[in-house]
Order: sequence, then C-alpha cells, then structure tokens
Amino acid sequence: MKKSVKIVTIGGGSSYTPELMEGFIKRYEEMPIKEIWLVDIEEGKEKLEIVGKMAQRMWDASGYDVKVHLTLNRREALKDADFVTTQFRVGLLNARIKDERIPLSYGQLGQETNGAGGIFKAFRTVPVILSIVEDMKELCPHAWLINFTNPSGMITEAIIRYGHWDRVIGLCNVPVGAMMKEPQLINKSLDDLVYKFAGLNHFHWHKVFDSHTGEDVTLKIIDALYTQDDESVPANIFDVPYFKEQLETMKMIPCGYHRYYYREQEMLNHLIEEYNAIGTRAEQVKEVEERLFELYKDPHLDHKPEELAKRGGAHYSDAACETIVSIFNNKNTHIVVSTKNNGAVPDLPDDCVVEVSSHVGGCGALPIAFGPLPNAEKGWLQLMKNMELCVLEAAVNGDYGMALEAFTINPQIVSGENAKRILDELLIAHKKYLPQFKDKIEELEKEGITIKDNVARELCEQGL
Amino acid sequence: MKKSVKIVTIGGGSSYTPELMEGFIKRYEEMPIKEIWLVDIEEGKEKLEIVGKMAQRMWDASGYDVKVHLTLNRREALKDADFVTTQFRVGLLNARIKDERIPLSYGQLGQETNGAGGIFKAFRTVPVILSIVEDMKELCPHAWLINFTNPSGMITEAIIRYGHWDRVIGLCNVPVGAMMKEPQLINKSLDDLVYKFAGLNHFHWHKVFDSHTGEDVTLKIIDALYTQDDESVPANIFDVPYFKEQLETMKMIPCGYHRYYYREQEMLNHLIEEYNAIGTRAEQVKEVEERLFELYKDPHLDHKPEELAKRGGAHYSDAACETIVSIFNNKNTHIVVSTKNNGAVPDLPDDCVVEVSSHVGGCGALPIAFGPLPNAEKGWLQLMKNMELCVLEAAVNGDYGMALEAFTINPQIVSGENAKRILDELLIAHKKYLPQFKDKIEELEKEGITIKDNVARELCEQGL
Amino acid sequence: MKKSVKIVTIGGGSSYTPELMEGFIKRYEEMPIKEIWLVDIEEGKEKLEIVGKMAQRMWDASGYDVKVHLTLNRREALKDADFVTTQFRVGLLNARIKDERIPLSYGQLGQETNGAGGIFKAFRTVPVILSIVEDMKELCPHAWLINFTNPSGMITEAIIRYGHWDRVIGLCNVPVGAMMKEPQLINKSLDDLVYKFAGLNHFHWHKVFDSHTGEDVTLKIIDALYTQDDESVPANIFDVPYFKEQLETMKMIPCGYHRYYYREQEMLNHLIEEYNAIGTRAEQVKEVEERLFELYKDPHLDHKPEELAKRGGAHYSDAACETIVSIFNNKNTHIVVSTKNNGAVPDLPDDCVVEVSSHVGGCGALPIAFGPLPNAEKGWLQLMKNMELCVLEAAVNGDYGMALEAFTINPQIVSGENAKRILDELLIAHKKYLPQFKDKIEELEKEGITIKDNVARELCEQGL
Amino acid sequence: MKKSVKIVTIGGGSSYTPELMEGFIKRYEEMPIKEIWLVDIEEGKEKLEIVGKMAQRMWDASGYDVKVHLTLNRREALKDADFVTTQFRVGLLNARIKDERIPLSYGQLGQETNGAGGIFKAFRTVPVILSIVEDMKELCPHAWLINFTNPSGMITEAIIRYGHWDRVIGLCNVPVGAMMKEPQLINKSLDDLVYKFAGLNHFHWHKVFDSHTGEDVTLKIIDALYTQDDESVPANIFDVPYFKEQLETMKMIPCGYHRYYYREQEMLNHLIEEYNAIGTRAEQVKEVEERLFELYKDPHLDHKPEELAKRGGAHYSDAACETIVSIFNNKNTHIVVSTKNNGAVPDLPDDCVVEVSSHVGGCGALPIAFGPLPNAEKGWLQLMKNMELCVLEAAVNGDYGMALEAFTINPQIVSGENAKRILDELLIAHKKYLPQFKDKIEELEKEGITIKDNVARELCEQGL
Repeated sequence: MKKSVKIVTIGGGSSYTPELMEGFIKRYEEMPIKEIWLVDIEEGKEKLEIVGKMAQRMWDASGYDVKVHLTLNRREALKDADFVTTQFRVGLLNARIKDERIPLSYGQLGQETNGAGGIFKAFRTVPVILSIVEDMKELCPHAWLINFTNPSGMITEAIIRYGHWDRVIGLCNVPVGAMMKEPQLINKSLDDLVYKFAGLNHFHWHKVFDSHTGEDVTLKIIDALYTQDDESVPANIFDVPYFKEQLETMKMIPCGYHRYYYREQEMLNHLIEEYNAIGTRAEQVKEVEERLFELYKDPHLDHKPEELAKRGGAHYSDAACETIVSIFNNKNTHIVVSTKNNGAVPDLPDDCVVEVSSHVGGCGALPIAFGPLPNAEKGWLQLMKNMELCVLEAAVNGDYGMALEAFTINPQIVSGENAKRILDELLIAHKKYLPQFKDKIEELEKEGITIKDNVARELCEQGL
Repeated sequence: MKKSVKIVTIGGGSSYTPELMEGFIKRYEEMPIKEIWLVDIEEGKEKLEIVGKMAQRMWDASGYDVKVHLTLNRREALKDADFVTTQFRVGLLNARIKDERIPLSYGQLGQETNGAGGIFKAFRTVPVILSIVEDMKELCPHAWLINFTNPSGMITEAIIRYGHWDRVIGLCNVPVGAMMKEPQLINKSLDDLVYKFAGLNHFHWHKVFDSHTGEDVTLKIIDALYTQDDESVPANIFDVPYFKEQLETMKMIPCGYHRYYYREQEMLNHLIEEYNAIGTRAEQVKEVEERLFELYKDPHLDHKPEELAKRGGAHYSDAACETIVSIFNNKNTHIVVSTKNNGAVPDLPDDCVVEVSSHVGGCGALPIAFGPLPNAEKGWLQLMKNMELCVLEAAVNGDYGMALEAFTINPQIVSGENAKRILDELLIAHKKYLPQFKDKIEELEKEGITIKDNVARELCEQGL
Repeated sequence: MKKSVKIVTIGGGSSYTPELMEGFIKRYEEMPIKEIWLVDIEEGKEKLEIVGKMAQRMWDASGYDVKVHLTLNRREALKDADFVTTQFRVGLLNARIKDERIPLSYGQLGQETNGAGGIFKAFRTVPVILSIVEDMKELCPHAWLINFTNPSGMITEAIIRYGHWDRVIGLCNVPVGAMMKEPQLINKSLDDLVYKFAGLNHFHWHKVFDSHTGEDVTLKIIDALYTQDDESVPANIFDVPYFKEQLETMKMIPCGYHRYYYREQEMLNHLIEEYNAIGTRAEQVKEVEERLFELYKDPHLDHKPEELAKRGGAHYSDAACETIVSIFNNKNTHIVVSTKNNGAVPDLPDDCVVEVSSHVGGCGALPIAFGPLPNAEKGWLQLMKNMELCVLEAAVNGDYGMALEAFTINPQIVSGENAKRILDELLIAHKKYLPQFKDKIEELEKEGITIKDNVARELCEQGL
Repeated sequence: MKKSVKIVTIGGGSSYTPELMEGFIKRYEEMPIKEIWLVDIEEGKEKLEIVGKMAQRMWDASGYDVKVHLTLNRREALKDADFVTTQFRVGLLNARIKDERIPLSYGQLGQETNGAGGIFKAFRTVPVILSIVEDMKELCPHAWLINFTNPSGMITEAIIRYGHWDRVIGLCNVPVGAMMKEPQLINKSLDDLVYKFAGLNHFHWHKVFDSHTGEDVTLKIIDALYTQDDESVPANIFDVPYFKEQLETMKMIPCGYHRYYYREQEMLNHLIEEYNAIGTRAEQVKEVEERLFELYKDPHLDHKPEELAKRGGAHYSDAACETIVSIFNNKNTHIVVSTKNNGAVPDLPDDCVVEVSSHVGGCGALPIAFGPLPNAEKGWLQLMKNMELCVLEAAVNGDYGMALEAFTINPQIVSGENAKRILDELLIAHKKYLPQFKDKIEELEKEGITIKDNVARELCEQGL
C-alpha cells in the first residue's frame, strides 16, 4: 500500500464528517493521509461547502498537511482512492421523515432501519451503492469500501451479493457503545474482557468473558444491568428494559435495537406518542442538523463541537477510522463488522453477510467463528436474514410481490391491508429514488393512491 | 402384524369419535378391526358413555362384529394395542376458552393452535402425551401412535424428541381440504394432479403438478383461486384472501392458517369482533358440541350426523383411518403428515418434525424430499420451528425465561408488558394442568396477578 | 401426455436393445407406443441395422403395431419425442478396453465405472450428453431423458448441473438385483419388505424393513448372506465377501460395487490376474457381443436370446421400461434412481445428484428422505460425490489440474507418478473423444508420452 | 489468573522437555512460572530423572527461580495446575515401531500418525487422555490442557467429544514450519503476510495474503516452491514434490503430510525401502533419543543441545509456549491449533475438532472463519474427519466392526484380507494398552494369529 493515502467520503456533506475528521487526525501518526475527497450531490452542495471548509479548518488546526477536496464529481474523486467511506442518505432527511411518518400514520412502526422504513431505505440505497461499486471496479479496483450508510448490513450484503465486490466492511457504532459501557458495570476495564458478538446489523447479541480466566461473565453483566443504570442504549432508541428472565435464559446480551422486537408494544407506543406530539426522530434530527450546520459555518470553529454527540452516531468515527487504520497497518484489531459469514455464524448460509466480532487487518475482516446460537436467537436470525434477502431481491429486481413478501415476514409490520397500503404509499412517496419500481408506481398512481400523512404528503407535493 | 387389530383412542369421549368410527367401518374390508377401546378421564366419563354407545350402535348397524370398549383405565386399554390414536384435549373446551379469551382481552390474537393459545395448548398437552408414550413403551411397544391432538406438529415433535418414540405419525385435516377443493378449480380431478406439501403443521405450502405432463400448475390454481369461489378454507378460519401478487411471487399455495400470518390485521380484527359480539370460537364450538351430544344420546342414531361436519374437523377421519389402513396394508398412500424430517425439508434440521407429503406404508411415513424453499418461506419456517422448539423446551422444563423467549419470537404475539401479562394470566388460568410451572405459578399468585377477562376468570373460580 | 408415444433410443445399435424391446412389449397394454427410433452414429451403423431389424421382428411377433425407425440423424429422431433413452458408449468397447488396460498396465484398477476408467468414461461422455440435451431443449422440450449410459450418476449430474435439464432420471440395474435376490434369503417375498436405498450410483447402501411390522430386518439379511449363497453380485463383479463384522456395525447392506472399496486388495488382484491371463472384462464382453450380433442376424430370431443375460446388464430393461411406464401412468412405483437430492441424503448438498429410493410418477422421481448416514458411510459418500464433482468440472472445462485432483482423491487410484502417467496415457489414448483437453493432449504428445500397454497402444495406432 | 503459574507436563520424561523448558525460559518475563511438574509412569522413571535434572539445570542457568518437580504421581502433580501439557507416548517408541513395521510387513503404509499406525496410536492414547481429563475435572477444573500427543487432532476431539472438556488446545508444529520457510521464498517477512490455515491436524491447507495490499499471494509462493529449494518439509517426511498443476488448480498449499495422500506411491515405496534397509522412522528416532539422553546425562549441560533439532519436532516449543503465554496474557496471537470448529470450516460439523488459524487469548482459541473449501479438498476433509470419528468411536467402545470401518475408509490402507490381518496383528501387538478391545484380542489369540514382522514379534515376546 502506497504511503500517501487517499480517502474518499461519499456523502461528504454529512454532519458526521467532522467526527470522521477528528478520528483521522487522532490517528494521523499511524496513517499519514495525503488527501481527503468529500463527494456529494447537487442537492447537498451547500452543506458540502460548509462542512468541507470546517473539515479543512480542523486539519489546518491539527498541524498536519492534509488537503480536503470538495466535489460533486464522484468519478473524479474515486480515481486511485485507497479507502472509500459511504455515509450518504438517498433523499436526505426528508426521505427518512416519510419512512417514519407514513407507517406511523397507520399505527405501525416507522423507523429508520427497522420495519417499513428500513426496507425503503434499502430500496433507495441499493441502486446507488451498486453504481458506486461499478465506478470503483473501474477507477480504484484495489480500494476498500467502508460502508456506514444504513441499513448497513443489507447494504453490505448488496455490495457483495449483487455488486460482487468483496473488499468491503460494513460498520455500525452499536457494538462500540456496549463495549464502552458494560465493563464498568462489573468493575472491569475493556482490557479485562473478551467480547464475542454475532448476528446481523442492528440485530446481534454478545457474550462476554473474563480475559484472565476465560470465565463467561455474561450473566454477571446482565445482573448488573438491572441493578445499575444502563447507559448503553443509543440516543435514538427509547430506553425500555428487557425482561430479565428472558436474558437469563438467553445467556447473551441483545443489542439496543432488539427493543423493537423484544418490547414491541412499548416501542411502538412511544413512537406513536412522539409522532403525535413532537414529530418523529427524523424531524428532531433535522433540527439538530440545522443547528449543527449553523455552528459549522463559524469560520473560527476548527474542532468537533460537543453538540454533534447528541446527533446519535457517537463512536462512528472511532469504529470507522480504527477499521481503516487496522487495514492499513494490519493491526488485527477486534472490531464488530458486517462481513461475509464464511461459517462464523453457522446458523446462516456461508455466503451471506453477518455482523460479527472480527479481527481486522490487511486482508479486511477475519470473522471469529461464533458457533451455533440457542434456538430462539437462531430462529430470529434466520427470519431476519431471509427478510433481508427478500428486501434485496425486491430492491434489485423491483418485484412488487417480493416487496410484499418482505413486508409480510418483517416482524415490525402487521400484515394485511394497512401494510399493503403503507407499501404503496411509500412507493409513491419515494418515486424519485425508486427507478426499479417505476412501472408499479405508475400503476399505483393511476389507481389514485394518495398519502395519508399530512407532513409526508406535503413534502412530496413540494418535490422534496 | 396380527390379523385381529386392536385400536385404542385416547380422548375417546370426543365428539369426533363417530367420524372416526365411520372411517373404520368404511375400510373394514381392508382392515378387519377386532376391538376398539375408547379411553377418557373422569371428567369426560359422561361424554364417553354417550359417544361410546353411539359408536357401538354404528358398528352394530354396519354388520361387522366389532366390540367398542369404554374405560377410564388407560393402561388396561393400551395393553397389546396395534394403533393408538390421540384426540384428547387437556382441560376440555373450557381450557380453549381461556386460551382464546385471555389474549384477546389484551387485544392480541387468541387462537387454538396459533399465538399464546397454541403455546399453552402445548404446555398442557406435552406432559400428558409423554406419559402416554411411557405407558406404550411398556404395554404396546410395537404399536403405532397416530396423533391428532393439537398443536399436532409440536406434539409429534415432543413424542419423538423427548419421548424418544419413533412409531408416530402426526395428522391434520388441512391438506386434505386443499386437495379436495383445488382440482375442480382447474377442471381436473385429484388423480390428474401430483401434490407436494412441505412445512410445519398448520404452516405449510404446496405445489401442484399435472400428473400427465409433469407441468407445474400451481400458478394456474392461484389464478383460479381469484376468479372462482375458494371453499378450501377450514370452517374455523375467517376467509380473507391472500394478496395475489405475493402468491405469484411465492409460486406456492399457503395453507388456510397462513391467514394469521399473511393477513394478521384482518384476522385479529375479526377475532376481536367475535370476542366482543358472540364469544370466541371455543364458545361456539362448545354449543355445537352440546347439540351433538344431545343427538348422540338418541338410541336410534347409528350413523354420523350431518351436524358433525360443521364442527370444523372435516376429513380428519379420512386422514386418520387412511393412515392406519395404509400402515396396516403397506399401501404407500400419499398423505401429508407430521414426521421426522430426515432431510425432506432441507432448510430445517434433519431431526426435527415437519409436515410433509409422504408415502405411508408398513414403515410409517416415507417423506418426499421437497428441496429448499424460497427465501421468504425459508425464513418463516426456520422462525416457526425454532419457536416450536422453545415452546417444547419450556413445556418440558417449566423454564419461565424460555416461555418468554417463545412468546417473544411468536409472530402472533406483540412483545412487551401485555405479552408478559398474557403469559402470566394463562399460567394461572391453567394451573391445574401445568405441574412443570408450579413454582412460577405460585410466585405469580403471590404477586396477586389476576385474570382480566371475566369469562376466563369465572371459569377459573369455578375450578373449570 | 399424448396417447401415441414416441420413444427415442440413443445408442440404439447396442446389444441391449432387444432387452429394452422386450420390456416395452411386456408393458404395451400400459403404454401403447407408436414409434421407436433407434439412433446411432456412423461407426455403429452396421450394428444398428442388425439390432434394428431384430427389434422390428420382436414387435412384429408381439402382434402390436409399432414401427422401429433406424437413423444416424439424431435431430430427426428427437423431434417431438416423449421419452429419450441413452445407452450409447463413446468410443465403443475399444475405449473401454483402453480404460481397463492402461491402468492395469501400471498395476492399478482398470474398471468401467470405477477408478481411472470411470473418470475417462465420464470425460468422453459429458460433451456428448450435453449436446444431446441442447438438441432436446430445441426439439422435444417436454420429453423425459432416461439415462443408463455409465457412469450413470455422473452423467445425470452433468445433465442437471451443466445441461440445466431437470426432466431426467438416471438408472442402474444394481438395486433391482438386490431386491430380486435378498427376500428369499429370509423366506420373504419382495412385497413383504420395504427397501430404502441411499447413496450414489454404484455406491449405495440399503436398509430393509418388514412391511407388516415395520421392523428393521437388515441384520437378518446380512446374517443370511453369510449362511446362504449370495447370487446378488452382478456378473461383472468378482464375488469376494464383505467382512461380516463390518456390515453388522454398518447395519446397512452395501451394493456389489462396494467390493472395489471394501475388498480393494482382492478386487485388484483378480483384475490383474484376468488382465494377464484372459484379457479384461471389456475384451470378454466384446466377444459376447460379437456372438450376440451373430445371433441377432438370424432373420428368424424374434425374441431376446438367453445369451443376452450373460452380458451383465440384467434387469436394465425392467428398470428402464418400468420407469418410463411409471412416468407415463403416474404409477408412483418404488424405483432406485439417480435424481436431484433435494435433501433426501442430507449429508450431501441439496442440489447434487444422488441414487436413492424414489417413487416415480408423472413428475419424475420423488426421492424418499433417507436421513443422515452413519459416520463411515457419510465420509465415503462425501468423498465420492466431491470426486464426481471434480471429474465433471474437469470434463466440462478440460482443466488438467482438476483432472489430477480427481485422480488424487479417487480411492481406486494410488496417487503419484504412475497415476499421473495413467492420466496422461488415457488422455492420449482417447484423444479423438476429448476435445476439451485438446491443448494438454498436444503438449503430452510433444513430450513423447507413449502408451505402455500393447493392446491399447495397437488400438490407438489403428485409430480405434 | 493467579500470578504464580503452575505448569504440569504429562510425559515429562520425553526428550522434548528441554525444548519446552527453553520456550518457557525465553518467555519468563511475560509469564513468571513458579513451578513445573514433570509427570511420567514407572517405565519412564529413568528418563524422567535424567531429563528432569537437565530441566532444572536449564532453569538454574537462566537465573529464574523455578522449581522442577519430578513425580510418578499424576494426581499430585495436577492439583491446582494452571496449564497441563501432554506429550506422552503410550507404549513408548516400541509401540511406534510396531505401528510402523506391522503394516509395512504387508506392504502397507506404516506411519506414526497416518494409516494403521495413526489409528492404533489413537486407540492406545484415548483411554489414557480421558482418564487424565477426569482427574483434571476434580483437581484443576480451571486449568488449560495443551495437547501435543499425537494424533493431536483426534486426541483433542476425544477430549472435547468424549471427555466433555472444552478448555483444551491441540497443537502441532507443522504450520509453524511453513510460516518460517515460505515468506523468504517470495522475499517477504512473516509480518508482510497474513496466513489462513484450515483443515485437520496433519491434513490442512493454507492460503497466504499480502498484509499490505490484501492480495492473495498463494500462487506466487506455489510458483516459488518449484523454482527454489523448499525446506519446509518436516524432517520425518520424505521430500517428494507435489504436482504443480494440481496446486495451481487448488490455489492452496497443502501441508507436508499431504504427501502421504498426494504422492502415495512414492511415500510408500520410500517407507518400504527404509523398512528393508535401515529400519523404520521409530527405530531411527530411538537411536537419536538414546544419544540425546546420553547428552542429557552430562551434569554440565544446561541448555538445549543442537542434536535435539534433528529429532523432528522443531518449533513445538514455540507453538506450545506461545500458546500458553497467549492465553495467560490474552495476547490474541495468530496460532494454528486444533479446536472446536464452531463453523470456521463450514464443510465440517460445528461440533467437531478442526485445525485452523485462530487468535489465541484468555478464552482459548478464537478460530477464524475460513469459509467453504473447493470440492476436492472438501471431499478429502469430510472423508478424513469421518474416518477420525470412526476411530474414536472404536477407541472408546472397543467395537471391532467399527475398527474395520475405520480401516476401510482410511485412504492409506488397502482394504481386504491384509488390512484385516494388520488390524488383528496390531490388536495383539498392543494388547497391554487396549483394554477396550480385550475380548476381541483374546478371541484373536485363540485363533492363533501371530505377528509376521520379526522385530515387532520379538518386542512383543519381550513384553515391550
């Protein structure tokens, strides 16, 4: 690997970019970056300018000689890249507002990566990520693609299964959160423990062992979770506790997102309450983002502002930058990533993508063979992975029947007329980003299907 | 196999018994039965007397010399039996009323074999069926056990997995219904078609082929289902249609019970409506049964009355008697049964029970290797089988955490406080039949948990 | 299926054809054939004429009005065929002589379907069978292909895996032999027993059950095999007994061909002895065949001559004709066939070909799910199937390294210099029929590799 | 883990002990050992004294305060042990002489870990290792068992499968050899490369990647192996090259022991030659060992003598000591070990033992998920693992039929009369160490079976 590293960030205008810059600055001695290219699309141009200048200020303040390039020309940026990170959001936060509000208008879960929302985020993102991969094959065939565009697991699966590109690692900050909070619950440091995660993105469990004795301390942590404050729930997840007896039988710790599956009733009620009272998460984030960009505009700001932490993606930069540096230096770091299974989770096919404890080095991720899961978790996993595969098949082929299959099997969606209606409204609402479903959408429009939720409908009417 | 066949029916006081008698009478020339033993328990003594006399009248009218023995002594009956059929209902219809009403009182699906109701039917039945198997090992080790006690698939799995008894076939009348109704939809007779079923009890799909050309005619039948009246939905299932586009993608035909999964919204609404208006299915059945037993009392009635057909279990006798005669005569008949997988449904473990097209003969069921299912159906199957395994583990060990796992993964149950409450109320409501959960139930009673549904609570207060 | 059946036999000039005719005549009432087309190639023209006339005489003598067409034009024959049977031998018996003699000249097993011989028979046959399948897709897309060209399992696998043609059944007469001889060993008739076969072509085991009691009687038969004369070994296999203790542990009965694997030493010694003394099996068969064709020339002969039985393929016609008639009439007959696994043998992949007890009807073969095998047999099976897959990959791609892999893993071949030399000599010897290996063969010829065995070398020099 | 480490070495009188001591001395700063217990049996007492004193001298010379205890009382030694290493040889080198000579006397491969010899080494060792495990459960339940007693993979499998002890790691020095020799062939250091091994003990393959670019460099190394001298073949394996075309198709590098499978002819001829000329490897080793013990007697010798390297087990100490220190310090070192599969080699069952690249730390080995192997290697692996399972089943149950199954499926054994005779002679020859086969051996003795090989027979007659 050449010494002068070129990093390309697609979706560079994101409010997360300063966090990423901070991560690279912190690790500059390990990996001397030469140039960073922030890429965005026409609609994101203004944000790109703001955050791009902010990024350059951060580097200038660091004393390292790194040039931040801003461009709307993806191909120019990709040329000879070493690492490509993807953090774009097709349709921006307005699309997420629709993903959340349209299901909730029918009393069903509307969430960014779960339920109907997560499915449509995949529908919109898959065509774009596959076109990026095609560009990479041509312009930077030796680069690594580090994806944190959600739904991160499905997007990684699309890259490998349909893009036939293996130099990819999918990332998520959830496992980092658990590893940062849990050790102290049992008066340990992270170094005292060995973590083994297995499952899917936003749907994994972990076991924890004492690194000195090899003893399984998972039940100790579970116990501590119920006697002490648990702060490991990501900011964007409502904090309702799991049933302790269930975890004691499971002998594993679920991730925060399992709340949508293990405490469905409370999560749904909470979202409906927010929907009616203060607007959905996307609407809240939109405000946070606007405030952030106001801050970023300050020509004197040259470091990550504290407000960014509230945004919800804490630890992303650590996960992402550490992954990149681990590849660069063959560090063999333990990181939980989405990667090809290869048997690590033997309850799922070898060739699908799982999120699993891996050692990351010069060959990418070497997943740790976790072994078979208990029945309940095995069943969940097999359901969710097959749901993902249905989503991807529909995302690639635009098969409406397959979309219905995905909706039906998705545990967050109550099948029936309303579910079908949510599917239809979301197709119409996201028309601009769903070329694969063009014919079906036109058919639906002819049928006169309209969007019930006012906010979502108005966004559509404004072409947003 | 000896020529003078001894049949034992456990739960002999059931209203279905005349149907079973009719089936045996119809097949007497193929299998000359010597004696039939109808076994029941103290609580069912009166019904046993009524239906037992009716059964004897039916045989007498047939002209065949068959003696119907009535007994409350199971072990006496099992001695040297050739075939043992099980159609008992632990806790009788009152238990089913609780299974249905308690979940519905929290707005969740209450159904005999699905959701919380099906789980508790398994919890009550497993200890009893395992004790029957122990008796059989001692008293009739060469007999075949033909189970139609619901949930038939899980009970068959319990018999094999925990009872270590392989001479068992689990039955259900649902596939028979499909095969009786569908051929005419495409102007064929059953002989013109080859059916391949695969899945689990009350959760299977089928494909249909032209027996003359080998051509797959499944899509033709699907098409016909939407242009003609479909009468293949069992009497106890509300008839809401599947989404045609979904079936066209699936290229298989789901069973009637899939409505609970594919049209969840409508099925739940329908059940809640009935719950509020006319009482649940069990309450309706109870009335039908009472009328039936009034009929059975008539000393002149010596054949199956028409009213029995309304009861909901049509074709059971055909499936059961045909299975027994096929074993007896090594007939190799195509019957859809619950049996050990052995690879027939390769998406599930070899050693679990599946419901699958089989050829039934002297060795029991020879399942037809169906091959892998499409992703959506594979995911469903893997979920449901693992849910079943959790239920059985809890049923055998009385592990409350495992019961919570089963409730959480069950697609009919919305996880959360209400789900846990339903679990707790059902444990209390069925206390008499759940020795394995004794300690937990006492704990719950100490906590003062009471049953919200009036009807169910009153049944409990009356010790019913 | 239309009423006037057209049968096409590729390799129609084979000495087996009269046996096939006899089988069809015997079953004419069940399946009224209209026309039979015997196809052969230029080199087989004379034999085709002789056996074709004989075939017509047989039909004429039967009183049925069936026309036997003779042609060298395969495409003309295939047009609108209903059933295509393949019994051709690429390179005729001379090729088999080379397959047998060249390995034996290095002291290694030379046999038609095992070891190096079987591999090369596959190498020669695969390109031809795939071109037949291409013709069928065009000319008779609804026909069934009934293959008995050896190695029958590998050829069936090639048809499905590389030809993407599923309407195929691979046949072998070995299981029929076992089922005809074994019952009498325990004083039973075949109707008293249920047979379950599983494995691969020429490499399967079976279990036997009493059809009246379901009892496993395999050990009884094993016992009887050692106290009575066993005549179930095919004529072409030297009759050395298996070790009884091994079979008692196995609790299954191996097929005759397992002798090459379970009594390797004796089988090899026997073949070497024959090689040195009287010539290999192919040379013996060649003489038998010549005598047969002399008989066939007799214009008065209008039925299968007794001498044909000595030829080694007894029961082929029964297996083949019964298979065809079972498809035609959806008879659901138990036949042991090579077909897609679909889970029937769960120790092998779902999508590979296995030889397994099936019920054959209008949809082709419905394999019986056999369940997992004991460790030793599982290991053997997995080895052999992977060996077959290597052979096919080499056969399709002409990859010399893959041919070496196949030779190395084949249990009949002692790896090393001699094995490589045998591979090289066979490549040269069969040059005419191995277009896929063209480049490698030219390279070998340049290296000056010559054939050591005199007989084989002379055949090559004569262009035979 | 407590700070004062207690190491127990069973088979402490081995000539390898000084190498182990050297490894611990080199790593003392990382892991401060308090006491080392060398355990042996009565027959090894003299050697234990010699090597034990030598070991103490080595520690004294090192300047570290470590006490070497010598004992014949295994239970005394095991009490509160932290690490138990096993390097014992049941029956000493005399047993190995029989393992080698008896098969060779029938012209079949006689080798320590392959063929009949390897099977009998397992037969003798399994009962002993299982009794050690029973002691450990009682006396040091938190200790780690580091096994290098051969056949290392099978013994590790026995410990986990039949001993139900998971805190075990099986070791072998073969992978270390490859990693020490290969990098220089392509002008790299080990740090420049990432190694991935997968397979079974003495039967694994590896792939190599450039740690800077992630590029697969396996074919480069294969190429270099044929242009440069390969010194990576262990001293005890005759150095015949693999066929290059085969490796190029395989795209992996086999281990040295694959020579017995890929160049069977040459390996067997070489062994027969040695057998006839200079005696087998065991006899050569015996001489080397005698010389070594003469050296060890020298009261001035306080470091590992150069002659030990010739013994054949080079790098053992590195593998063993590094494994122990990696556990002790949770180092996460890449080591190739025998451990429970857990999906790492998805072609084999999750619960069997594989030899695979792992990261070794406080929880033992975390195997890297390797993914599926190509067909040929998959077939080999599945064969060999099932052979191992047969061997272990026979070793535990003393089932002669299962021993025959193992002999038949073992690729190094030519099945038939001679194979059975070899089995019988080895049973008799090792009578003293095979209590599980007692009845069968007595039966064989009654039949008058005698040992053909003079040397082996004389050893037996002398009770050695």
